[in-house]
Amino acid sequence: MSEELQRGLEGVLVAESTLSYIDGSEGQLVYRGYDIADLADHASYEETLYLLWNGELPTESELSSFRDAMAAERSLPAEVSQAVETLGRQEGDPMAALQTTVSMLSAYDEDRDAEPTDTAANVARGRRITAKLPTALATFARARDGEEPVAPDEELDHAANFLYMLNGERPDAVAADVFDQALVLHADHGLNASTFGGLVTASTLADLHASVTGAIGALSGSLHGGANADVMRMLEEIDAADQDPVEWVEQALEEERRVAGFGHRVYDVKDPRAKILGERSEKLGEAAGDTRWYEMSRDIESYMADEKGIAPNVDFYSATTYYQMGIPIDIYTPIFALSRVGGWIAHVLEQYEDNRLIRPRARYVGETDREWVPVSER
Amino acid sequence: MSEELQRGLEGVLVAESTLSYIDGSEGQLVYRGYDIADLADHASYEETLYLLWNGELPTESELSSFRDAMAAERSLPAEVSQAVETLGRQEGDPMAALQTTVSMLSAYDEDRDAEPTDTAANVARGRRITAKLPTALATFARARDGEEPVAPDEELDHAANFLYMLNGERPDAVAADVFDQALVLHADHGLNASTFGGLVTASTLADLHASVTGAIGALSGSLHGGANADVMRMLEEIDAADQDPVEWVEQALEEERRVAGFGHRVYDVKDPRAKILGERSEKLGEAAGDTRWYEMSRDIESYMADEKGIAPNVDFYSATTYYQMGIPIDIYTPIFALSRVGGWIAHVLEQYEDNRLIRPRARYVGETDREWVPVSER
Repeated sequence: MSEELQRGLEGVLVAESTLSYIDGSEGQLVYRGYDIADLADHASYEETLYLLWNGELPTESELSSFRDAMAAERSLPAEVSQAVETLGRQEGDPMAALQTTVSMLSAYDEDRDAEPTDTAANVARGRRITAKLPTALATFARARDGEEPVAPDEELDHAANFLYMLNGERPDAVAADVFDQALVLHADHGLNASTFGGLVTASTLADLHASVTGAIGALSGSLHGGANADVMRMLEEIDAADQDPVEWVEQALEEERRVAGFGHRVYDVKDPRAKILGERSEKLGEAAGDTRWYEMSRDIESYMADEKGIAPNVDFYSATTYYQMGIPIDIYTPIFALSRVGGWIAHVLEQYEDNRLIRPRARYVGETDREWVPVSER
Repeated sequence: MSEELQRGLEGVLVAESTLSYIDGSEGQLVYRGYDIADLADHASYEETLYLLWNGELPTESELSSFRDAMAAERSLPAEVSQAVETLGRQEGDPMAALQTTVSMLSAYDEDRDAEPTDTAANVARGRRITAKLPTALATFARARDGEEPVAPDEELDHAANFLYMLNGERPDAVAADVFDQALVLHADHGLNASTFGGLVTASTLADLHASVTGAIGALSGSLHGGANADVMRMLEEIDAADQDPVEWVEQALEEERRVAGFGHRVYDVKDPRAKILGERSEKLGEAAGDTRWYEMSRDIESYMADEKGIAPNVDFYSATTYYQMGIPIDIYTPIFALSRVGGWIAHVLEQYEDNRLIRPRARYVGETDREWVPVSER
């Protein structure tokens, strides 16, 4: 038992996993042995989920049954939809609305009587949670704008259907494709804080719904999923001030303010997801005839690399990607959840397979041996 | 960077804390320097909360304003109550109903626009969450039985008011007192799994509501809070079979089944909370003229101590304590949450004071260098 304090658990190995491999010095990310660049180019989000949950890429018929099963499970129970609409009208935090969704869904789940560690039940539960989260988020965002929910369209794939439910019209092929790629890129990333939070929950043999609900909460913080929204707010601020982005960043650094979207605990070089999303962001700008956001980002990236030697992370380019698709800034982090839920579920399945309660210790540095004093004598 | 795998983080120090000290070999538990036996005998749950959140016992006037502020904050927003009643009628998991409650409450919080790390706002948020959770649980339990919610009674203390809202009648003095002591005993316990889960969430700078929602999920597992319900189901099984409890346990051990309520990662000797609750359980039995449940527990305790050298934990005696108060078995774990929420909030306050993102690593043991194969060729 070491008496050394390891506050952030940095570098501490708490699990073995077959899900994703990160090479922080080479800038490589791999799911189940497949490079993320190949998956972003070729695999749909549904195909990526199948790979993460089953270990192998699906055959044509496996993929089509998996996709169809998910597409058929997108609707929310009326009571859950109602709670989410209430939170939208109340202008609550969309991440809290997703937590509400998943915790409520546990009461309606078809496998609610199966054991928490039942693998087949969990794969089915996971598929249903993943299928329904986009519906909840679109319902929330529309209710906030005073709009009725749009029913899911089973003919559309997972990514395209979300954009359809959000905007009420079918997305063009470029938007659907880029959004699908963004979901693929965010689906898993080792033991990030939200995944680890999910594992801590699962390690008590709490059920999948509780584990995912917990993970959503951890993702909501500004040091984790919340960073993509921070990047966009920064770019909007620069744009509104009509300032040169490099000058703005210089000034921010002088004032010791944080420049959002840079640095990552596990990468020494550029995050491979930032590389791919940067290209997509540029493409979206070109398609719209306005590459301003991409250029602003690229200038900041060059400056930070030259002056500070730090590279952008995934949040830096997901921000402008979503922005150019017209998505409201405060749902960037919930969109991260729509994708990462696939990884959370895969890691929870691994945890249940060979479980051990995760229970560290704190060093007590407080008062000792105090004698009770009755309230009248204080 | 050590390459040793530390799966349960057993013995790993991840924080410094001034909240509770556990001496596992002496069987001592201390909150802020005060022995748990003194607190159980003398302090109310409200007083214990004040101590945990502020570091000092309150003066008479501090205690009475704190108690009154909490008592005034017990009601749920109508929409939250409605969602909880829905989950009750649906016979959902009561822990999921508590998660739904806290995630929804974030949208109605008076301090919803304050920063996640604002201490004053968090103490107020924490007080409101703690005040409202019993209302949610009582509302849930009554809705499940087809009963309308009972409005909170500001004249009653926190513990007594919960029993009143649950049963629709004011509890007798013994029941109110024992329930208050049970809440005091469960309020904090170092970095248990649910508290640690809450800290993982808070470490991303997620807000207090998200952190508490996550912690509730971790508490729901059978290796953590869920154990108290398991103890009672075991005792009911023994009673229904009209079997000698020691024979039942002998047989269970032979068949390598787990005997619920024994052993704890941090105690080598008897859990001090079990000692206190055992006495309360005996007292409740005597008051009711039926000490059967207490005696059954005591016989099992002696046998396990003599034969296996392991002592009961807190869950072993909270089970019969709640049972003899007529509380439904599946809300024992939610009652644990009504108490431990005080500790979760205190630990989250500490985490925000000196935050570091909690993000460990996993060892990758999966496939490498796989080449993409188009779906038509699989």
